[in-house]
Amino acid sequence: MRFTSEQRLDGGVLEREFSLGEIPGVLWTPESASAPAPLILVGHPGGLRRMYPRLVARARHAVAAGFAAATIELPGGGDRPRFAVAEEARADLRRALEAGEPVPDEVVDRLVRPLVDKAVPEWRAALDALLALPGIRGPVGYSGGVIAIGLRLAVVEPRIAAALLFAGSFVPRAMVEEARQVTIPLLVLLQWDDEGNDRQLALDLFDAFGSTEKTLHANMGGHTGVPPFEGDDGNRFFARHLR
Amino acid sequence: MRFTSEQRLDGGVLEREFSLGEIPGVLWTPESASAPAPLILVGHPGGLRRMYPRLVARARHAVAAGFAAATIELPGGGDRPRFAVAEEARADLRRALEAGEPVPDEVVDRLVRPLVDKAVPEWRAALDALLALPGIRGPVGYSGGVIAIGLRLAVVEPRIAAALLFAGSFVPRAMVEEARQVTIPLLVLLQWDDEGNDRQLALDLFDAFGSTEKTLHANMGGHTGVPPFEGDDGNRFFARHLR
Repeated sequence: MRFTSEQRLDGGVLEREFSLGEIPGVLWTPESASAPAPLILVGHPGGLRRMYPRLVARARHAVAAGFAAATIELPGGGDRPRFAVAEEARADLRRALEAGEPVPDEVVDRLVRPLVDKAVPEWRAALDALLALPGIRGPVGYSGGVIAIGLRLAVVEPRIAAALLFAGSFVPRAMVEEARQVTIPLLVLLQWDDEGNDRQLALDLFDAFGSTEKTLHANMGGHTGVPPFEGDDGNRFFARHLR
Repeated sequence: MRFTSEQRLDGGVLEREFSLGEIPGVLWTPESASAPAPLILVGHPGGLRRMYPRLVARARHAVAAGFAAATIELPGGGDRPRFAVAEEARADLRRALEAGEPVPDEVVDRLVRPLVDKAVPEWRAALDALLALPGIRGPVGYSGGVIAIGLRLAVVEPRIAAALLFAGSFVPRAMVEEARQVTIPLLVLLQWDDEGNDRQLALDLFDAFGSTEKTLHANMGGHTGVPPFEGDDGNRFFARHLR
């Protein structure tokens, strides 16, 4: 892991870009802290530069509550080499959406499964590197989409102790079964009128999670309309489980 | 309105029992406050004495956050005269539940509609009396069940500015239509595995509410298993809308 840039944001936040091999990432930490900060991994649908305004807003909110936050680019996202199998599936997905047709399950499978299989080991490698830094500690939270990546991480990565999952992206139906293996505390955010999301599948997924502590927060508005108070709710959720 | 008893609870809470004509009620206020406290009406399924431990816990939590809280007995509840039409419907309901049969819509109608029609004017009369007291002000919140009573109050009572509704009691299907007339901010609590509750009807009701700000919080556990952190979430919801 190699830091490539560093800047101070107002509010006492230190932002550092890094490279983990070929994978770019960003780390946000409190500029001054008396004790190591629990880490929150910030998930997103790929394209760090495009997503930056929303990511930095979420990270600043987490740092203000005493957490460290970090994210890495997804396979095929941003400047990373195209990810052929996912690109093809994405084109098929776009065709279905533009034609106003239901998205076939096999397209979702082709899009999400290889992404999850490739991304999850990368996020785990990032965890190894991040937790070796001074000032950062586990247990770790995962916050955001892609929900299928958060779900798989929750199953396989024991350092992740709580997850706030955005139910706003496609999930292979077979992963609804995998959700039964998740046992960590969950907060699932669902945008009730999310144009690109299958509400019933999101409810089925929430139902399937094996966690005894799981909470669903459904709000009005489209995909990007999560109300600001959910940021505070998220911080309190992580404070309960990472402190 | 006539106060019938008064006691100081620890935590700086003044509890006063009152009678409003034939209707008993309880008012909880901060013992010392520099400004009038916004009022939260605490809803329940009837039987103040039986419900007292849960009601006083919710009221203390609200008072600790700077609110006043009040409740009144429901028609036919506690020591109030039996409410014949509702009693008959309740017996039919019990028979259906004990036989493990679905509860017929007409039984829910016969149970809930007269209760709502009779209770809502009483809650409004209580509001008149409570808001005339020193140290208490509007806008007012409604918190709890019976959800059908909260729903009707939200439609007809302009002093109610926000409602936290427990989706844990029966709702006549026709009131799902009435829900479209509700426009105040809502926080709806749903116990995902509530043995006595129809989850799909609760989701349909949430979908039907006309409010642009409405949030659903679903948690695990049965009817009485609402997790403690929802008390804090409720206070923050009312703080956003009653202050």
